[in-house]
Amino acid sequence: MLLPQIKQPSDLKSMSQDDLALLSAEIRQFLIEKLSVTGGHLAPNLGVVELTVALHYCYNSPADKMIFDVGHQAYVHKVLTGRMDRFDTLRQHNGLCGFVKRNESEHDVWEAGHSSTSLSAAMGMALARDLKGEDNQVIAMIGDGALTGGMAFEALNHIGHEQRKLMVILNDNEMSIAPNVGAMHKYLSKIRSDRHYLKAKDDVEGMLKKIPAIGDRLAKSASWIKDSVKYMMVPGVLFEELGFTYLGPIDGHDIPKLIETFKQADNVDGPVLVHVLTTKGKGYQPAEADSHKWHGISPYKIESGQVLKAVGKPMYTEVFGQTLIDLAKQDKRVVAVTPAMPTGSGLIPFSKEFPDRMIDVGIAEQHAATMCAALAMEGLKPVFAVYSTFMQRAYDQIVHDICRHNANVMFAIDRAGFVGPDGETHQGVYDVAFMRHIPNIVLMMPKDENELRHMMKTALDYNEGPIAYRYPRNNVVGVPLDDVLVPIPIGSWEQLRLSEGYAVIASGSMVQLAEEAAEMVKREGITAGVINARFLKPLDEQMLRDLAVRGTKLIVLEETSQAGSMGSAVLEFYAEQGLHDVHVQLMGIPDRFIEHGSIKEQREEVGLTVENVCAELRKMAVQSSYGIPKTRFPS
Amino acid sequence: MLLPQIKQPSDLKSMSQDDLALLSAEIRQFLIEKLSVTGGHLAPNLGVVELTVALHYCYNSPADKMIFDVGHQAYVHKVLTGRMDRFDTLRQHNGLCGFVKRNESEHDVWEAGHSSTSLSAAMGMALARDLKGEDNQVIAMIGDGALTGGMAFEALNHIGHEQRKLMVILNDNEMSIAPNVGAMHKYLSKIRSDRHYLKAKDDVEGMLKKIPAIGDRLAKSASWIKDSVKYMMVPGVLFEELGFTYLGPIDGHDIPKLIETFKQADNVDGPVLVHVLTTKGKGYQPAEADSHKWHGISPYKIESGQVLKAVGKPMYTEVFGQTLIDLAKQDKRVVAVTPAMPTGSGLIPFSKEFPDRMIDVGIAEQHAATMCAALAMEGLKPVFAVYSTFMQRAYDQIVHDICRHNANVMFAIDRAGFVGPDGETHQGVYDVAFMRHIPNIVLMMPKDENELRHMMKTALDYNEGPIAYRYPRNNVVGVPLDDVLVPIPIGSWEQLRLSEGYAVIASGSMVQLAEEAAEMVKREGITAGVINARFLKPLDEQMLRDLAVRGTKLIVLEETSQAGSMGSAVLEFYAEQGLHDVHVQLMGIPDRFIEHGSIKEQREEVGLTVENVCAELRKMAVQSSYGIPKTRFPS
Repeated sequence: MLLPQIKQPSDLKSMSQDDLALLSAEIRQFLIEKLSVTGGHLAPNLGVVELTVALHYCYNSPADKMIFDVGHQAYVHKVLTGRMDRFDTLRQHNGLCGFVKRNESEHDVWEAGHSSTSLSAAMGMALARDLKGEDNQVIAMIGDGALTGGMAFEALNHIGHEQRKLMVILNDNEMSIAPNVGAMHKYLSKIRSDRHYLKAKDDVEGMLKKIPAIGDRLAKSASWIKDSVKYMMVPGVLFEELGFTYLGPIDGHDIPKLIETFKQADNVDGPVLVHVLTTKGKGYQPAEADSHKWHGISPYKIESGQVLKAVGKPMYTEVFGQTLIDLAKQDKRVVAVTPAMPTGSGLIPFSKEFPDRMIDVGIAEQHAATMCAALAMEGLKPVFAVYSTFMQRAYDQIVHDICRHNANVMFAIDRAGFVGPDGETHQGVYDVAFMRHIPNIVLMMPKDENELRHMMKTALDYNEGPIAYRYPRNNVVGVPLDDVLVPIPIGSWEQLRLSEGYAVIASGSMVQLAEEAAEMVKREGITAGVINARFLKPLDEQMLRDLAVRGTKLIVLEETSQAGSMGSAVLEFYAEQGLHDVHVQLMGIPDRFIEHGSIKEQREEVGLTVENVCAELRKMAVQSSYGIPKTRFPS
Repeated sequence: MLLPQIKQPSDLKSMSQDDLALLSAEIRQFLIEKLSVTGGHLAPNLGVVELTVALHYCYNSPADKMIFDVGHQAYVHKVLTGRMDRFDTLRQHNGLCGFVKRNESEHDVWEAGHSSTSLSAAMGMALARDLKGEDNQVIAMIGDGALTGGMAFEALNHIGHEQRKLMVILNDNEMSIAPNVGAMHKYLSKIRSDRHYLKAKDDVEGMLKKIPAIGDRLAKSASWIKDSVKYMMVPGVLFEELGFTYLGPIDGHDIPKLIETFKQADNVDGPVLVHVLTTKGKGYQPAEADSHKWHGISPYKIESGQVLKAVGKPMYTEVFGQTLIDLAKQDKRVVAVTPAMPTGSGLIPFSKEFPDRMIDVGIAEQHAATMCAALAMEGLKPVFAVYSTFMQRAYDQIVHDICRHNANVMFAIDRAGFVGPDGETHQGVYDVAFMRHIPNIVLMMPKDENELRHMMKTALDYNEGPIAYRYPRNNVVGVPLDDVLVPIPIGSWEQLRLSEGYAVIASGSMVQLAEEAAEMVKREGITAGVINARFLKPLDEQMLRDLAVRGTKLIVLEETSQAGSMGSAVLEFYAEQGLHDVHVQLMGIPDRFIEHGSIKEQREEVGLTVENVCAELRKMAVQSSYGIPKTRFPS
């Protein structure tokens, strides 16, 4: 066994290329075994074993900067940088992060989670290096899927212009999470499939020697012909046109070839792009056969490849996907738009039913949002199905193109709230705060899957501007589903328990929590109201006024950033109304990033628990029964 | 005169090509005259006169959709669509909008203001057309500058993939506002300058005929050679690789050539890109000579080209630019990053002093922000100089790459608050609401230019994470500037007038307004405090507590979206502290988009005036002197 000897990347330096291949096999086996217990991003990491080994063999991390786009394909890097023994805790609370993490290792120089940031990071690090007069290499490893994100192109354009030394490794596995779409993808496929390139190169060189004989006229176009010849020689002309030296395509599982190419790349002054072909799931048959399914996987049986999923209630995502089919059958204006997440967003059944009305734009949230605005303005009813965290990419397009145009775009915001093991880069906890202040938009969140369905109908029937429903990355509550979907009056809340002095205004999953808390304190003689704040914007102003008039003390309970979300909206409303003495307590997510763990652990970490709601209700009850006088001068 | 006969675009249809050229000259003269009085985007519009005339001649607006990227180059379109008589009111309150505006004309089908959205809009409209079974053409006109914005690439990638019929007109004038940067720009330059293309095309065709004679071996690579030949024939191979049919480059001032090319383009099934070369400022010598200066211009004398700028105090922008030079002299970690706005951001003097430390990334806010994170993580102190409205494009990068990494990035947020004649697409009124809820960031706004300088020093000395200072699109107050810059304690506010019962907590320009109001009501015997809330995050919690303890009634006055900004932060703070009966009144911008006009008119429209602050203070005073009892049951 070679693997146990690797404590740090420099331990690779003395190994033979044969040993590097053996080591790669051991790493692959290690990952297959460890992830069979913890789950995790298996297929992407099996695809980059040799690539990561070769990189650490050739370069000196952390002096040379290794930047992993998205960062979920850094498991091999973690193994090689002394974190082998922590894989049992992968993606668990206080355990090894599933992404690159600076506080884990000095070799983790750049964190990500969202795609397409690595090239900008590399450009910044190369620039800093040059300004500081240092001479390290900077390496960004980016997948072909991530390359379609707009910011990656912005970076390519700038890097090509600046001509600073850095290396981009295009890890081309023909997939992002789902199979890739887009013209860039077709272009890369053409390069991959073109077996004539190498042979043709010889032919063309032969031909060129004969050109002078063809005639004098051609000589006048000499420099132009030379350029054209470059097109012939170089498969990656698109990258060459953008100022890169293109090397490849090469086999990403061939260690000697990788090492040879990195040496070549290192001799290039200026930016170089190494096009590496890898196989997602390489070396584990089930993952190779269905790398999409095995992108991020639950625990599994190694021999059979059987995935050990807890059999349970369906996810909200599935209810969304199924309901959208029902609505699309009734209303042919419905079109679904996804930025590269057809599976994650539950849209595969929809795409089979309505292939023409399902548009996967690739990793391109900005384009998706603006395109939705245009679809809506032409009379369709696009639903932009997107994870809360990725929607952050489209903030400007939501303001400038959707809300400013008051376009009838429907947002299906999935993974709203805590997301569990993906951790801080993926938490869906800001969308309320970054959308609530935008004029014209309506925001909803259902307490259960049945209400989600009614909200989807509400959105479809609403033709006065943009409207969003957000739902969590959770299993559904398990309530019966109504057959007939009825629109909910815009801005109306639902009083689930009558209040007597105290009420919890809760949104989404927090409604259930509030109900449990109310039930619990009821046994102690405290009667607390529970309100399902199903509209986050607009608020139910009449209900808020009534609560104020009755002197009800309020807790606003929400699984979003406490700053700027619905709690703030409630406070603003009372301030605007001149109702300055309503007792409103906020229970949301405090002002810091929350790391990976289970959703339950994340809620506990920030105090969003039944126990805490009970405790707050008890405090309110005690204050009132003691008759503590209201005072303008609290001590 | 032909121009007065044009009431609608269809009036062009019967004109001869010679008349179209005459008409173009008349339009050019019309614009030069009208804008000499009102000011406006002269150079971009002079550049697209023939292009717009030819488009309306060839197509049928509004059935055929004409989409103008950014939308400030639609003056000619406005002239041709019946709005000639409104040019005296251009960019004025209730006057003709400087951008495309749907409520002005059925021919305005897509509004913009931010760049790079037109291709996504075109894709959406083409898709809607196909789903509805219609057959109109969709045309997006985009500048070479806007093409570098990431979302434009996302759209190119998707359009190339989908292969639906639409036309992109690349209006290549070698400029965005400033001269363009980036590899794409170099690529386009190469096409532009390559005079061999047309002639060489003949040569290559001749050469190809001889290829079969060269030998049998080549035949095996036949299809590959065919592809390579395409590279030779087509200058726009990059666009061809992305799935477009490329036509051009053609002279954008040659009407017959434009018409001929549009006819050609219309015969193409699938997406076509027409590369049109235009001259910004065409036909007006001063604007042609310095199209950068004449991009957006104040009133001027036509004959001399002398710009009639009111001589006044400098802009905040200039103070920023000058101070940054001072700081960069003292601290070599300082690097300035701009997304294509070196002039607008006041960085030209800096770029002359420190050419190596000034990075213009092109229109690429996302890349700029993430690159800044990397620069900071490598020990530099990047200042991301950006307009508030354009920073919206980088929201995700601010969350995910800057704040989550807690990187020492400094933000210089220009044009914060109302921006005047550019109107609703450019208002800088959301940045507080969309940044305040992000963990780790510090937000400041100075009451005057002297304080701005101290804040810049504060930011430079602060090494605990991201920190921002925002300043308005205004002339400075005119206060003396301190020589020695001293950091302001983080989170500390400044009490400018002592309060007795009432205080206005104001930020930025609103401090002056609050002072004037306090001065005014003082004459009536009402003593109001004024607090300079120079930190929007964190708040001065001690001062807020003191105010609460003293029972001071508060007005929070800010020129930002009232929802989610500092006023909400104050309310949240009191709620968190259990101080539930503090009287806080919010004065901010209501929940709707505010159109063009002067900054003064925009403030009046939303009630951010001295008079209104006085009125609110008087109301508070009356309530108190009448001794209205506090009650939980307001009527």
